[in-house]
Amino acid sequence: MVTPVAFPDPPLLNSAGVHEPWALRTIVELDCGDGLVGLGETFGDAPHLDRVRRAAAALVGTDPFDLAAVRRAVAGDHTPRADGQDPVARVFAPFEVACLDVQARAAGQPVHALLGGKVRDRVAFCAYLFYKWAAHPGGDPDGFGAALDPDGLVAQARLLVDRHGFGSIKLKGGVFEPAAEVEAIQALRAAFPDHPLRLDPNCAWTTGTSAKVAAATAELLEYLEDPTPGIEGMAEVARAARMPLATNMCVVRTGHLRPAFTQGAVGVVLADHHYWGGLRACADLAAVCRAWGVGVSMHSNSHLGISLAAMAQLGAALPELTYAADTHTPWQDGVDVVTEPLSIVDGAVTVPDTPGLGVTLDRDRLGRLHEQYERCGIRVRDDTAYMRTVDPSFRKLRPRW
Amino acid sequence: MVTPVAFPDPPLLNSAGVHEPWALRTIVELDCGDGLVGLGETFGDAPHLDRVRRAAAALVGTDPFDLAAVRRAVAGDHTPRADGQDPVARVFAPFEVACLDVQARAAGQPVHALLGGKVRDRVAFCAYLFYKWAAHPGGDPDGFGAALDPDGLVAQARLLVDRHGFGSIKLKGGVFEPAAEVEAIQALRAAFPDHPLRLDPNCAWTTGTSAKVAAATAELLEYLEDPTPGIEGMAEVARAARMPLATNMCVVRTGHLRPAFTQGAVGVVLADHHYWGGLRACADLAAVCRAWGVGVSMHSNSHLGISLAAMAQLGAALPELTYAADTHTPWQDGVDVVTEPLSIVDGAVTVPDTPGLGVTLDRDRLGRLHEQYERCGIRVRDDTAYMRTVDPSFRKLRPRW
Ligand SMILES: [Mg+2]
Ligand SMILES: [Mg+2]
Repeated sequence: MVTPVAFPDPPLLNSAGVHEPWALRTIVELDCGDGLVGLGETFGDAPHLDRVRRAAAALVGTDPFDLAAVRRAVAGDHTPRADGQDPVARVFAPFEVACLDVQARAAGQPVHALLGGKVRDRVAFCAYLFYKWAAHPGGDPDGFGAALDPDGLVAQARLLVDRHGFGSIKLKGGVFEPAAEVEAIQALRAAFPDHPLRLDPNCAWTTGTSAKVAAATAELLEYLEDPTPGIEGMAEVARAARMPLATNMCVVRTGHLRPAFTQGAVGVVLADHHYWGGLRACADLAAVCRAWGVGVSMHSNSHLGISLAAMAQLGAALPELTYAADTHTPWQDGVDVVTEPLSIVDGAVTVPDTPGLGVTLDRDRLGRLHEQYERCGIRVRDDTAYMRTVDPSFRKLRPRW
Repeated sequence: MVTPVAFPDPPLLNSAGVHEPWALRTIVELDCGDGLVGLGETFGDAPHLDRVRRAAAALVGTDPFDLAAVRRAVAGDHTPRADGQDPVARVFAPFEVACLDVQARAAGQPVHALLGGKVRDRVAFCAYLFYKWAAHPGGDPDGFGAALDPDGLVAQARLLVDRHGFGSIKLKGGVFEPAAEVEAIQALRAAFPDHPLRLDPNCAWTTGTSAKVAAATAELLEYLEDPTPGIEGMAEVARAARMPLATNMCVVRTGHLRPAFTQGAVGVVLADHHYWGGLRACADLAAVCRAWGVGVSMHSNSHLGISLAAMAQLGAALPELTYAADTHTPWQDGVDVVTEPLSIVDGAVTVPDTPGLGVTLDRDRLGRLHEQYERCGIRVRDDTAYMRTVDPSFRKLRPRW
């Protein structure tokens, strides 16, 4: 069963615009009979939802223990292309997670056991700061407050760190002039002297600007994430920067690894099972990073508790995951489709050892979030178009500065 | 339970000397109670056997579903070194295979299901030719005949191809002058016009000799394996050679991948779960090869049916395995420790879909092979020392020519 859902999202700013009032996800239930149901979660945009629905139909009768057969069924007419692009990865991912959930439940084992075993009991996540408005246009203020300057971000960080005990902090940048964002990092460093800090402007800067920001933040950041577009641009910045560069934008499929690593473009890759093609594909990615001495962190889009559980299970099994993972979880403010979402305490999720992913679908919650999907009117995430309803002159520019 | 075994081995020649009359292996049984027993097989040399026994003792009480915990227990005081060397890999491997066998049996699934599913139903193996004597010194002739020139090798290839339907042929070289081995390859090409051919002199040649042989066999070989020692030497030969170079000697652990691939030293890596650290470690190796566009083949030492089953299960799940795997199986002439060894028919093993590895230990056979171990007097494989009993002037030289 494939169910699109929508849940409230605060007005979080980024280089592409601003989050719309509703975030979309697709929930996959793989019912294998005998009460054995596996769960997966993926993006909610309409074209993707359509592909996931068609894949679900093609999968009927496939053995959930044979992931190669599942992949073939999902792939249908698609085949991996010679350039390494794999259009199937995003569609396969939620089914892979659901199959691993089924396999693990059937074996009475946690999913991490299927991924090579648990190398850590707790998976660290970071406080993911956003510049944000106090409210959506025409809406009521949310509980997070505005954050449009260093003081606002420090207050936001304090709130997230107080709630979840985060031990490291990431700022989504690319929103204001680079100098203002450097000031924000300096303010965060002053307020949180011992927290590793990261800045991610989503390719908003030229290579020259990136090098200047890298110099200005040289002692302040554990890594600088996607300052500029493209592997070549990142490689140029990497030669000037003293901290590692991280990416979830220029290395997003297997074919990117060789050119990026050969050119020394990145020191950290953010894994994301939603677009790499599942948990095993991320383990493969980590194996390549291990061979190259490149670090591994974890990327997040707005997501719910099935994805958080999948990330925690993967994080438990990846020796290479030496950085705290991204998550948007705090911004969802407790809204979820699972009965008992995993909680982030002291900056980490304690990885469940119960069978499967360790979370259970709450059908009432799923129903409510699906109703919200039906009513919200949003079918494709478009941060730029939404920003233009407020500022018609806004354009998505990469780089902008 | 850890049981050393010995089985008859023909006098197969290589650059290090000649196989002794008895080959040694160690059989691992992981008894989890309730009739659930997992099987593993590894090298039989005494120091390794001792390490495996100590690891087995350290493992008691460890959950076979938690491979990370198994690895920690096996590792004991060892830790992976900064240079990428992993002294634990060889000791961990048979336990990893045995744990996967247990996990798969418990789930009622074949091992390939735990490795990502089956991408092929049959795993191809190659005819593995050796220069050889008709008999061990002082012994009776074996059933394979002598092979000390092109005619002998062609006859041997005919015998192996007739028996097992092999679709490709590998010659273990490094035994005679390179020109003689080129002649052998030419004779094999004439006798088997459509069989892909490989030559593996085990680093017997200088880079200059390697380049000359590569030129002389340019149209004849699908790959040239380990012509010369070291990543730098291989890279030099690779720049001159028109066929890919393959290796199981200069890339034998994770730390070798980056330098070898960066220098373009190899086009094919031969995976071997016995020293890479298990089936999952080989899947990780294959992931790195996929990212780099490097091919994957499979290496073999003299082995029995548990290893053959493990290789078949791995081969079923690795999309990257585009070459026929090595195996010494035909040289063991049916001797085994399993009740029904997988058979090589039409050049391939049909991968079992029964639970676990798909083979069952035969305790009588195990007992007999263990008695042979007790009686044979060999405790460490030493092809060179054995050759020196025949030719006291023999030295292991890499390179020799
Ligand atoms: Mg990012
Ligand atoms: Mg070899």
